[in-house]
Amino acid sequence: MKKVVLIPDSFKGTLSSAQICDIMEQNVKKHFPECEVVKIPVADGGEGSVNCFLTAAGGEKRKVIVKNPYMEDMEAFYGILPDKTAVIEMAACAGLPLVENRQNPEVTTTYGVGQLMLDAVEHGCKKIVVGLGGSCTNDAGAGAAAAVGVEFFDKDGEKLIPTGGTLGKVAKISMENMDERIKSAQIITMCDIDNPMYGKSGAAYIFGPQKGADDEMVQQLDANLRKFAERIQTEIGKDISNIHGGGAAGAMGAGMVAFFDSKLQMGIETVLDIVKFDELIQGADLIFTGEGKMDSQSLRGKVVIGVGKRAKRQDVPVVVVTGDAEEVEDAYDMGISAVFSTNRVARDFSVIRYKSKEYMEVTMDNIMRLIKIVNK
Amino acid sequence: MKKVVLIPDSFKGTLSSAQICDIMEQNVKKHFPECEVVKIPVADGGEGSVNCFLTAAGGEKRKVIVKNPYMEDMEAFYGILPDKTAVIEMAACAGLPLVENRQNPEVTTTYGVGQLMLDAVEHGCKKIVVGLGGSCTNDAGAGAAAAVGVEFFDKDGEKLIPTGGTLGKVAKISMENMDERIKSAQIITMCDIDNPMYGKSGAAYIFGPQKGADDEMVQQLDANLRKFAERIQTEIGKDISNIHGGGAAGAMGAGMVAFFDSKLQMGIETVLDIVKFDELIQGADLIFTGEGKMDSQSLRGKVVIGVGKRAKRQDVPVVVVTGDAEEVEDAYDMGISAVFSTNRVARDFSVIRYKSKEYMEVTMDNIMRLIKIVNK
Repeated sequence: MKKVVLIPDSFKGTLSSAQICDIMEQNVKKHFPECEVVKIPVADGGEGSVNCFLTAAGGEKRKVIVKNPYMEDMEAFYGILPDKTAVIEMAACAGLPLVENRQNPEVTTTYGVGQLMLDAVEHGCKKIVVGLGGSCTNDAGAGAAAAVGVEFFDKDGEKLIPTGGTLGKVAKISMENMDERIKSAQIITMCDIDNPMYGKSGAAYIFGPQKGADDEMVQQLDANLRKFAERIQTEIGKDISNIHGGGAAGAMGAGMVAFFDSKLQMGIETVLDIVKFDELIQGADLIFTGEGKMDSQSLRGKVVIGVGKRAKRQDVPVVVVTGDAEEVEDAYDMGISAVFSTNRVARDFSVIRYKSKEYMEVTMDNIMRLIKIVNK
Repeated sequence: MKKVVLIPDSFKGTLSSAQICDIMEQNVKKHFPECEVVKIPVADGGEGSVNCFLTAAGGEKRKVIVKNPYMEDMEAFYGILPDKTAVIEMAACAGLPLVENRQNPEVTTTYGVGQLMLDAVEHGCKKIVVGLGGSCTNDAGAGAAAAVGVEFFDKDGEKLIPTGGTLGKVAKISMENMDERIKSAQIITMCDIDNPMYGKSGAAYIFGPQKGADDEMVQQLDANLRKFAERIQTEIGKDISNIHGGGAAGAMGAGMVAFFDSKLQMGIETVLDIVKFDELIQGADLIFTGEGKMDSQSLRGKVVIGVGKRAKRQDVPVVVVTGDAEEVEDAYDMGISAVFSTNRVARDFSVIRYKSKEYMEVTMDNIMRLIKIVNK
């Protein structure tokens, strides 16, 4: 056992991806002290994503003064990886925790996110990854667009920076003065949800309430998004009304496509690309991945399957450590060699969830124990 | 992976030891078709013990006409192993299923068990293993003793074959006419319980009710056992009042010590001796064992620890597959290399007990999958 790669998803509600990486590493090193361990905590775009990328790929964390959701100055951050890829989590300056006690998706803005992007191109980045998730906004990314020079005007020709409450007022959009470096940069958006921009399963209806919107506000936000989509269609010529994931982060998913010509892609695919997974696993004896629950219902976008497919090409075996493991046979054809559950006793999750860390430790310990007796 | 030894305990209430052996074997062969597999289903002395020994060690099953619990003729069986050791399960002719609808521990007898022992010595066996468990009797083995020539008399000098209801009438015991071959044979009694012969935790109080005794009968049976113990003390000079396991199988545990000079020992130790475990594991790459539940409360008499200790001496690694696995650290010092739980989802045992077979299969499959990718 000379080299092991760790790339677990988080166990939602119990263990973060970074915590699992640490537990896995400790137990690999306990039995194989000389083993090289590569840790890739999986970012999903939300809070913590920048740290995940920096842990996996190295690079530096930049701190920058930008506008917060209320257009006040704040210190935010993003990462610049060694290959000059910028990684931004929009939650860093438009996240829900930033507006505690004054949540209001009608007035909050993603302006600061655009400023982070500008800072990135000013520092020579030609590729920018923007992680969506955990937002307090519903501005369809209009604020971020405004920050990089996209101009919005109302029917009277007055310039505005649209927010959730004013998107419907936009009559004209000009991309003329948009920053050229941003225009030519490759911009990738991480987004793990499927919701469209508006409608009953759109940004306002599904995520508005948790951002502080009451029923009436939800309806208004939704109507504004719909009008804004129509305006984008007429002004920019892009149909963003039905994009999978367009509703992510207060419809910033749709805005990333409209203004930044960005591709929306699943977190795991982005991570695998950005950290150069195919290179990292060269010479690895084994890859450990995992997620809170594994079943046959949907393997789309699942970290373990994303990892399995890439690993299969290079014939590196993948072992999954998961919470619940039901009907996993399909995974064996997708590059997964073995699946172990962390459940150690027959008790309901409500009872044993508090033991998640201990059970992860014991399960990894025993997997490594087995490997050690066979691998001698 | 050239040779694997399988020696699991049963998972009480869900899977027999023989079933688990079969599942384990299938999954070893699935991934290592050329691997030699040695199966040792663990006998605990109760029903099925003879088949366990025959599976593990080979030999022949003998069918013999003996007395049933009501002194009627029946066909029973026992096993003769290749080394001429006889293995008897007392349940074969004194078992509870034999008296359905007429349970009565005051009148049932172990006479047939003595007849099986006689048949064994007549066929040249000099070593006899008697498994206790699952009995319908409460005669302290007096019936079996009578069958091999031990004589019991009441106060009037009348000869009797004592049963649970008449043990208290015994005034005199003579070993004079006991079969000499039985006297000189080595007799080992398998017994996995600790209860003493009589008293509140004795044979009558603890096991009487499940054999059909009501409160009054329990008290009478217990009083009779106490008197019989006193008589044995005065007539044979043995104190059997406080033997661990003396209360097993209607106090036959105590009778085996008194009349047959037998040692009572845990099932697993007997199995390991009889099947010549130390020889069987020579050259094995791995041993699989297991039990329904593993915890730190008591490791005494546990199959996995018995196996671990023996395996440790020869440095053969032992992998445990268990249901619940809590606080297993102590086991690592006792020859256990790794412990895997068969629980695959966080649900109560009452819900997933019906999946025990499936979960055992999947768990073994995944253990073998891991071994295969490491062991190439």
